[in-house]
Amino acid sequence: MKTIRMSIIGFGAVGQGVAKVLIDKKDYLESIGLDFKVVAIADSRTAVVDLNGVDLTAAISRKSAEGTVGSEKTTGLEIIETIDHELVVETTPTNIVTGGAGLHNMLMAFKHGRDVVTSNKGPLAMKYGELMETSNASGSVFRFEATVGGAMPVLNLARDVLAGNKITNVEGIFNGTCNYILTRMMEEHAPYGQMLAEAQELGYAETDPTYDVEGIDTACKLVILANCVFGMNATHEDVTITGITKITPEALLLAQNDGYVIKLIGEVNDSRINVAPKLVPIDHPLAVGGSLNVASVQTDLSGPITVTGRGAGSIETASAILSDMISIYRE
Amino acid sequence: MKTIRMSIIGFGAVGQGVAKVLIDKKDYLESIGLDFKVVAIADSRTAVVDLNGVDLTAAISRKSAEGTVGSEKTTGLEIIETIDHELVVETTPTNIVTGGAGLHNMLMAFKHGRDVVTSNKGPLAMKYGELMETSNASGSVFRFEATVGGAMPVLNLARDVLAGNKITNVEGIFNGTCNYILTRMMEEHAPYGQMLAEAQELGYAETDPTYDVEGIDTACKLVILANCVFGMNATHEDVTITGITKITPEALLLAQNDGYVIKLIGEVNDSRINVAPKLVPIDHPLAVGGSLNVASVQTDLSGPITVTGRGAGSIETASAILSDMISIYRE
Repeated sequence: MKTIRMSIIGFGAVGQGVAKVLIDKKDYLESIGLDFKVVAIADSRTAVVDLNGVDLTAAISRKSAEGTVGSEKTTGLEIIETIDHELVVETTPTNIVTGGAGLHNMLMAFKHGRDVVTSNKGPLAMKYGELMETSNASGSVFRFEATVGGAMPVLNLARDVLAGNKITNVEGIFNGTCNYILTRMMEEHAPYGQMLAEAQELGYAETDPTYDVEGIDTACKLVILANCVFGMNATHEDVTITGITKITPEALLLAQNDGYVIKLIGEVNDSRINVAPKLVPIDHPLAVGGSLNVASVQTDLSGPITVTGRGAGSIETASAILSDMISIYRE
Repeated sequence: MKTIRMSIIGFGAVGQGVAKVLIDKKDYLESIGLDFKVVAIADSRTAVVDLNGVDLTAAISRKSAEGTVGSEKTTGLEIIETIDHELVVETTPTNIVTGGAGLHNMLMAFKHGRDVVTSNKGPLAMKYGELMETSNASGSVFRFEATVGGAMPVLNLARDVLAGNKITNVEGIFNGTCNYILTRMMEEHAPYGQMLAEAQELGYAETDPTYDVEGIDTACKLVILANCVFGMNATHEDVTITGITKITPEALLLAQNDGYVIKLIGEVNDSRINVAPKLVPIDHPLAVGGSLNVASVQTDLSGPITVTGRGAGSIETASAILSDMISIYRE
């Protein structure tokens, strides 16, 4: 049995999802020789530290009942700096302007030779090059499957499963909110505003939907793909972006009559990074409905490989984090 | 650099595809520290052996010009038995009645501690348990991504990328011939016989199409999934099978008017293995057209993950073989 001491930095929906998954999968993980021992959890105001292993069930209950995970005033950054552990799971909220606390957390982790698994897009979309250099210099492993498409496994698919293939293009639907709104507009022949309101009521869209509907979230994911799959050093400023707010039910109907749907498609290859609404044939693998995400990876040997899955959700995202954790430490 | 001595047993379209891919990807493979040295190639009548490395370009040319790969009368089985090498790439034709030469080749490889990568469904659909026992006993690695869906990476996706997830159900389109015929019947409102004839003309269907259109090929792939993903010890006799020969254009039109397509769906879970035509909503990830294959893997944490790709083609299948080869030997 290999014991990996880890911290969870950020204890919102995703961080709690990771704790839940570690509780549920304890027996499975032991069966493959892995014992993940959480020695610290931090939220934005408090922390709990226990070198013998934090009681995860109690931590989740306390966060739910009191709004804070612990009684200590230690910050995530201090935990990463001072407590001896191998793995930092970084699940603080995305900030695409500065990279947020996540950027400092990750750099501190690498400085101390700790591995990092994250769902936090901000630092990767802003400072990919610096993060990779720092992690390489310290020999830390850095994995971030959860940042692009939640449970839809596009990064690890490209790296492991399609090994031997040269990837020439990636395109897909990387934002479930936009996909939900466009799918419902087509089904109901209803205008954008009405279906946005429905999505907000159901919790698929934020009160301020700009980040999703203007294509910014998609752009961040494309930047991560550009850097990770195509070896660029891009930021979200390198992306040409058009959102979905100008799409009309009439346009969707015209498309439908010709056997097409309209989807917000993100595309990245050697020469461009682009987000825009596009016509997709109804029986094309990219034409998936609801709030699903989908990515089509064009390869030299295998042709196009398309993968579809849930792009969000705390357990789905935690699952992507867990698969990264396993891939690092499994013999 | 790690040198892996290997044989290619079976030198039809897929075996030649493997040779081509090894030529094209030589630099890439060296860049990740792998040197695959082919020490022998056998077709059904002849062989070429060179312990310093067979000239792959010459072997492909000779096969193309003369119909045979070499001048030696050695069989594949003898090569596996007598020549010292680490890896057997087994690409002889599928035989689902006896398992064919492939079964003997694989068992001989394991007996001598050699790893096996194969695209040959027959032995796996017939004798999965015996093959796994024998390979485990000798410590050989046995990989067969190419047997299920060609370039569509379902087995390795389930094993590596979805690590940590419990897989509860797999369903999909595992036969490109049937998908092509059904897609064209819907597009042209044409009867089965006419679109079968078209598929035969274009080379998508065999002169005797029974194996594909009656669902037997799909059944074999499900058996491999049942054994590999669900730990069963099934053979193709355990599968309930209905083919596509009774589907009418009228049925397809009725379905289409309600927003559905009809697809030959294979499904496997703990309690059943089943092949039958089914209604699929037009915007569902399984509703892919043309000759594509698709598999939807239901997981406990990630929800459904669907992967789509080309189910056949010599280079596509060779690519799946190459990804297995890399996954075995890459550090």
